[in-house]
Amino acid sequence: MARFLKDRIERNGQSPGSLIFIGKQKMERPAMHLIQYNEDGLREKELLSIDEIDLTAGTDLVSWININGIHDMGVMKQIGDKFGLPPLLLKDILNTDQRPKYEDGENFDAFILKMLTYDKAIKRVTADQFTLILGPHFVITFQEQSGEVFKSVRDRIRNAKQRNRLNDSDYLAYTLLDTVVENYMVIIETLGVQIEELEEKLFSHPNRPLIEEIYTLKIEISYLRKAVRPVKELMWHLLKWENSLIQDKYRHFIKDLDDLLLEATDAIELYSGMLTDHLNIYSTNINNRNNEVMRFLTIFASIFIPLTFIAGIYGMNFEHFPELQYRYSYLIFWIVVIGIVFVLMIYFRRKKWL
Amino acid sequence: MARFLKDRIERNGQSPGSLIFIGKQKMERPAMHLIQYNEDGLREKELLSIDEIDLTAGTDLVSWININGIHDMGVMKQIGDKFGLPPLLLKDILNTDQRPKYEDGENFDAFILKMLTYDKAIKRVTADQFTLILGPHFVITFQEQSGEVFKSVRDRIRNAKQRNRLNDSDYLAYTLLDTVVENYMVIIETLGVQIEELEEKLFSHPNRPLIEEIYTLKIEISYLRKAVRPVKELMWHLLKWENSLIQDKYRHFIKDLDDLLLEATDAIELYSGMLTDHLNIYSTNINNRNNEVMRFLTIFASIFIPLTFIAGIYGMNFEHFPELQYRYSYLIFWIVVIGIVFVLMIYFRRKKWL
Amino acid sequence: MARFLKDRIERNGQSPGSLIFIGKQKMERPAMHLIQYNEDGLREKELLSIDEIDLTAGTDLVSWININGIHDMGVMKQIGDKFGLPPLLLKDILNTDQRPKYEDGENFDAFILKMLTYDKAIKRVTADQFTLILGPHFVITFQEQSGEVFKSVRDRIRNAKQRNRLNDSDYLAYTLLDTVVENYMVIIETLGVQIEELEEKLFSHPNRPLIEEIYTLKIEISYLRKAVRPVKELMWHLLKWENSLIQDKYRHFIKDLDDLLLEATDAIELYSGMLTDHLNIYSTNINNRNNEVMRFLTIFASIFIPLTFIAGIYGMNFEHFPELQYRYSYLIFWIVVIGIVFVLMIYFRRKKWL
Amino acid sequence: MARFLKDRIERNGQSPGSLIFIGKQKMERPAMHLIQYNEDGLREKELLSIDEIDLTAGTDLVSWININGIHDMGVMKQIGDKFGLPPLLLKDILNTDQRPKYEDGENFDAFILKMLTYDKAIKRVTADQFTLILGPHFVITFQEQSGEVFKSVRDRIRNAKQRNRLNDSDYLAYTLLDTVVENYMVIIETLGVQIEELEEKLFSHPNRPLIEEIYTLKIEISYLRKAVRPVKELMWHLLKWENSLIQDKYRHFIKDLDDLLLEATDAIELYSGMLTDHLNIYSTNINNRNNEVMRFLTIFASIFIPLTFIAGIYGMNFEHFPELQYRYSYLIFWIVVIGIVFVLMIYFRRKKWL
Amino acid sequence: MARFLKDRIERNGQSPGSLIFIGKQKMERPAMHLIQYNEDGLREKELLSIDEIDLTAGTDLVSWININGIHDMGVMKQIGDKFGLPPLLLKDILNTDQRPKYEDGENFDAFILKMLTYDKAIKRVTADQFTLILGPHFVITFQEQSGEVFKSVRDRIRNAKQRNRLNDSDYLAYTLLDTVVENYMVIIETLGVQIEELEEKLFSHPNRPLIEEIYTLKIEISYLRKAVRPVKELMWHLLKWENSLIQDKYRHFIKDLDDLLLEATDAIELYSGMLTDHLNIYSTNINNRNNEVMRFLTIFASIFIPLTFIAGIYGMNFEHFPELQYRYSYLIFWIVVIGIVFVLMIYFRRKKWL
Repeated sequence: MARFLKDRIERNGQSPGSLIFIGKQKMERPAMHLIQYNEDGLREKELLSIDEIDLTAGTDLVSWININGIHDMGVMKQIGDKFGLPPLLLKDILNTDQRPKYEDGENFDAFILKMLTYDKAIKRVTADQFTLILGPHFVITFQEQSGEVFKSVRDRIRNAKQRNRLNDSDYLAYTLLDTVVENYMVIIETLGVQIEELEEKLFSHPNRPLIEEIYTLKIEISYLRKAVRPVKELMWHLLKWENSLIQDKYRHFIKDLDDLLLEATDAIELYSGMLTDHLNIYSTNINNRNNEVMRFLTIFASIFIPLTFIAGIYGMNFEHFPELQYRYSYLIFWIVVIGIVFVLMIYFRRKKWL
Repeated sequence: MARFLKDRIERNGQSPGSLIFIGKQKMERPAMHLIQYNEDGLREKELLSIDEIDLTAGTDLVSWININGIHDMGVMKQIGDKFGLPPLLLKDILNTDQRPKYEDGENFDAFILKMLTYDKAIKRVTADQFTLILGPHFVITFQEQSGEVFKSVRDRIRNAKQRNRLNDSDYLAYTLLDTVVENYMVIIETLGVQIEELEEKLFSHPNRPLIEEIYTLKIEISYLRKAVRPVKELMWHLLKWENSLIQDKYRHFIKDLDDLLLEATDAIELYSGMLTDHLNIYSTNINNRNNEVMRFLTIFASIFIPLTFIAGIYGMNFEHFPELQYRYSYLIFWIVVIGIVFVLMIYFRRKKWL
Repeated sequence: MARFLKDRIERNGQSPGSLIFIGKQKMERPAMHLIQYNEDGLREKELLSIDEIDLTAGTDLVSWININGIHDMGVMKQIGDKFGLPPLLLKDILNTDQRPKYEDGENFDAFILKMLTYDKAIKRVTADQFTLILGPHFVITFQEQSGEVFKSVRDRIRNAKQRNRLNDSDYLAYTLLDTVVENYMVIIETLGVQIEELEEKLFSHPNRPLIEEIYTLKIEISYLRKAVRPVKELMWHLLKWENSLIQDKYRHFIKDLDDLLLEATDAIELYSGMLTDHLNIYSTNINNRNNEVMRFLTIFASIFIPLTFIAGIYGMNFEHFPELQYRYSYLIFWIVVIGIVFVLMIYFRRKKWL
Repeated sequence: MARFLKDRIERNGQSPGSLIFIGKQKMERPAMHLIQYNEDGLREKELLSIDEIDLTAGTDLVSWININGIHDMGVMKQIGDKFGLPPLLLKDILNTDQRPKYEDGENFDAFILKMLTYDKAIKRVTADQFTLILGPHFVITFQEQSGEVFKSVRDRIRNAKQRNRLNDSDYLAYTLLDTVVENYMVIIETLGVQIEELEEKLFSHPNRPLIEEIYTLKIEISYLRKAVRPVKELMWHLLKWENSLIQDKYRHFIKDLDDLLLEATDAIELYSGMLTDHLNIYSTNINNRNNEVMRFLTIFASIFIPLTFIAGIYGMNFEHFPELQYRYSYLIFWIVVIGIVFVLMIYFRRKKWL
Repeated sequence: MARFLKDRIERNGQSPGSLIFIGKQKMERPAMHLIQYNEDGLREKELLSIDEIDLTAGTDLVSWININGIHDMGVMKQIGDKFGLPPLLLKDILNTDQRPKYEDGENFDAFILKMLTYDKAIKRVTADQFTLILGPHFVITFQEQSGEVFKSVRDRIRNAKQRNRLNDSDYLAYTLLDTVVENYMVIIETLGVQIEELEEKLFSHPNRPLIEEIYTLKIEISYLRKAVRPVKELMWHLLKWENSLIQDKYRHFIKDLDDLLLEATDAIELYSGMLTDHLNIYSTNINNRNNEVMRFLTIFASIFIPLTFIAGIYGMNFEHFPELQYRYSYLIFWIVVIGIVFVLMIYFRRKKWL
């Protein structure tokens, strides 16, 4: 199955505005979780229906609705209606193949990006779609499946001492984005360690599985690049944009995120270049080994081939064969053999083949 | 025959403004189809002459004229006169080799792009010229041959429930462009699946036909790039352009199309890079196999060459040959043979050739 | 002799403003041809001296002076004086190595570009310098030698029906430039057909002359690029320039020319990339063949080498050699031989060498 | 361990604003050193606590506080509080993996860059984080460990004659930055000498360790690029920035630094390209040697293989074997042998293999 | 010794403003030469001290001071003081490793560039630093050593007829810069001829020294690029700059110089690409030859190996060996031998190895 592009063939021919889920359903039914908090307290709740949310409760209250599982058209439509999300945005959220992007709505900011996880067993990066809608006093996040990534953020909200720092919904949005992006760095580093470790093996054991390893890492780096590079663009647009809901006092946090992404893309290019170098080195090492093997064969064969010929001569059964009767023939034979070996050895040494 | 550029040699020397069809005639005679509709109803008709169209019928009526087959100079001239299309634009429509472009006329927008189809039998992408003229209350589309691509659009127009959404000619134009561009993604994905599947074969069976497959895919990707990249530019110009006939309320649809094209060009570059990697891997694997084969030959030959020499020595017919009479000569011969094999085995193992 | 740069060594050390012809003289003496026409009639004349031209004849008269051969310093100086061309411009016209450029003078526009011809016999593109000076009511063109390129333009001027379309000198200039640029496309296509045809040979007969063919085409493509790319820049400058003598009503013709050049440069890059791919494929195919040949040798040699050794053993002349007397020795010998062949065949088949 | 990216895994999940040291602790406890001077005199002091500094002493006094060792969270926090450094800046200072950057604070300029050292023994460049905070009348520098780099600057401050030139804190900052950047050039040059020296070895002894050397230098150049290129960006931003604390009269010094960095990045790209060339040359030389070795083997084997066959024929023991009895058989045998050698020699010479 | 970067190690640690000569002293003591001229006359003089120059002589007098040898700190300081050159500029003049640049001072324009010479004996380009200071009514030029480059300029000044054209100091400056840049073209062409000539050898004699030649040319082209590319930037800055001392009437001369440099950089990239192609072709040709050699060996060995084995069989000494006694054995042996050769020949021809 295609990993870099999801199956679009079925979609083709549909009305461009209609909602379709593009991707693989990763959990049975969507789960909705609500956290509401202000300086004084916190309320947490598993939602059965989106209607349970009351956004008019108070302007100092920050609401974070997290939805795990985006394949249920009905639920998605309800959410869209409730928060006034335009159909084209919903379409993008449902398309797990969507390129990361930033959308500036009338009363919301939408961020679509990829949440990456690295499966150490199969040495593969997998990307889930992650959407964050920042509205006044609320944040909605959409994930393809439930995961542990935001556990630390939840803990910090629950922890009273740190609570005040998350009082604004835009700060919460920043925190969530930062968590996702920091995770990119962790994955890049995980791959980076493997890439840097390849170096040693490259010279000591340039064997066949190594090339598969190099290639697999190259594919993973491409996969990472596809997920991370558009996020860099996204941040850049956000920084230049005037009407974002993110307050000016949080701008330098976004700048910080932008720096982090710059480092991430730098690192991706660096490692990508190193892998290309690895491939070249590997290939040259194989050539080197070919040369060594061939030199050995050449020296070995070149020494014995003439000797075998000489032995062959005196194995002939001609009746008139003067040397056969001569007393010292066998002695002379050995002298000639040793002489030939000697001369060839000097020749090969001169050629620097020995 | 050249596939990437069509035959221009005959045209050369003609007056730059004169109309000439450049390309291969793909159907016998042009077929013209008219759909006219508004909120209340729909009229469909096969046209025999362009004069049957009455554009003054009512300003709320949207007319879509589709022309299949563009090689008939007479018909094209009639259409040009009727809708006031400038000669240079007609020239571009007739040149099936025309680079995709957007032309902003006084009272029309013209989009020239490629309609791509993938023939699974011969594994080839073919490109037909597709031109869309958007005027006030009408859309004209030119195709090189008849096809099923716009069937879904026609069905939606015919379907009463969805009809109202297509009431403006610019929305219709967007829908048609979207259909063409969505189709690009489907073809890219079709090639993408093949490219990603190559990966496994690459390591298990790096045989000769594989390189032809890689190369063929590379050519198809180049062909795609040639068709798709200028469309990305086209959208970009359209988005920056003030005077387009596309109303502001449909601007975000164009933005969406632009995003899709960005993803398409990203994917094309990604797959192009993967094919280059495939070629390198393939080439390195061949080198690897050379090394293996050569190592086998070297080991095999190096062991037997000296042994054959020794056997040759004792096949000589010298009369004075002391070892021949010695009782244990044959035994010693075998001991020496086994000793040599043993020493060489250790040597090869040290060199990591075994 | 250098083909990509002309001989400059002699020029070095001269006063920067002085006029020198750089290049190879391609005809004996310059030939001057004048066409003057307006809506009513046409006058044609071979000029012996530049003074025969009377520019004051009438403002509705368009004069086209074509000069073939630019190596005569005296003639060039006369022309420069007559039409008020600045010395630096004359210097550029005389330097056949001049990079294509657009020069906006006080009362003229100058276009220096290359006229390309493809010699099918030697499979080489050759470039002649072509200069066009557009003044009010006159056009002067300089060519290195006489040729048939503008014959069609002349015929159209002479043809009464089309005459009125060429009434302005700027339209005449556009027509001439268009003829030159259309010719680029024809040459690119000629090379393109050869490049696309290489593809098939590449897989069926990757022999030695093929690489020369690839390389020669690569050089020709480079040569084309050197001539065409600056012309693209030139058009771009012209389009952005306000003070050009080309009237606004002809602007879209220039835009059309610009599109054509964009397509030309696109095609050049495409073919250049295809040739690089061809080279890689060729090289990998050679590696493939090496592998095949080596595998054959290895299998063949590996089977017979041990057999020859065994035959060698029983050719030894030891007196005490038990097997020689044994009745079934020869039969056993053949069984062993067949057994060894069998075992090795299985081994090679397992290794996928057979 | 990863060298190009430091260990981030532990950090992940922390609050984005919290202070964490990322890197390897390189000394036991931080050491703080203060130099205060004006035109009249100089005071130097090892600080035990940051509170010993009195910034109100006099506006003509320049204070330089150097901190070696940045892993002590407590000390860093104290400094941050004392000089009003924002938490995000402190976070960046503590992250030794931070990409070089320029930060323009309300009343300070912060420069984060890398201090490079080249360890000749292990042929490795190592990068320490270097941060410089320029405030009104003070400069704070943070280093990961103590070193001799700024000894010359200190000596110049202590030296009365030169003192007046360092009277402004921005000039002091420039001097320190210049010292760091000059050091980049020294390291690039050190690597450059090695790269240029490789050239000769490449042709005389293309042996195996050489490829390791090329690769190691490639890695070091990548490492350098990663440290130096962002500093170029930094300077560029600084030059375009209006509100920097660096006075206009010192602007041309920054321009000079910018030029130096341009030269540094130019040199890095140049050497990087040379190493890629080296690798290609090395690889082609290996191919060349393969060709030589193979040619030798082919000539040698091709001459003796038929001769051995002929000798083998006359070693056969057929009873009815006419040639064996013929008197001149042995003589004819030698004539044939010499004839075959002769013919093959001519053949090989024609093929230019000899 | 490093050729691409000069020795900086000693400089490191010095005060950034202090004057140090970086480079290799190329002549014993500086030589100063003065030419002063106006419309009426000319005065020439070898200067012993810079104080001999009297700049107040008359505003219509143009003074050209040429200094050969820039290693004498004392002389340089005197000049700096006399003409009011800032220390940073002097530093740049003294640094022979300085990247070419344009410096716009208060009452002077400074141009630092490289003067290139090509030593045909060792096939090497060498670069000397060349600095030109353009002031009102004077031009100062600094060269590392004396040379013949400006002889033609001096002759033109001395020649009365051409004198008036050099009446302004900015025209003189342009003439000198033009001489230097024209010289670049000559050197590029010299290398270009060699590169184009390589082409033929590449196919006829792909031998070992050829690769050294390719590589050496690649290095020289890199060296040229390093010297020429920044001069292109320099011209570009100059053209955009308002406050230059170069009068508007000479602007088009600068434009001309800029065109020349554009052609120079174009040519450098073209030749650089051609050399990369050469390397690839060479490498593929070597592979081709390997294939040929190997094919020969394989065919030769494969034919004789089985024959030798058969001869070996009948050389065995088994007592019970039925074929040995058979009358036609020897005849049958030859029939079998010829049969095997025949079958193998057909096989090889089918495989297209023959």
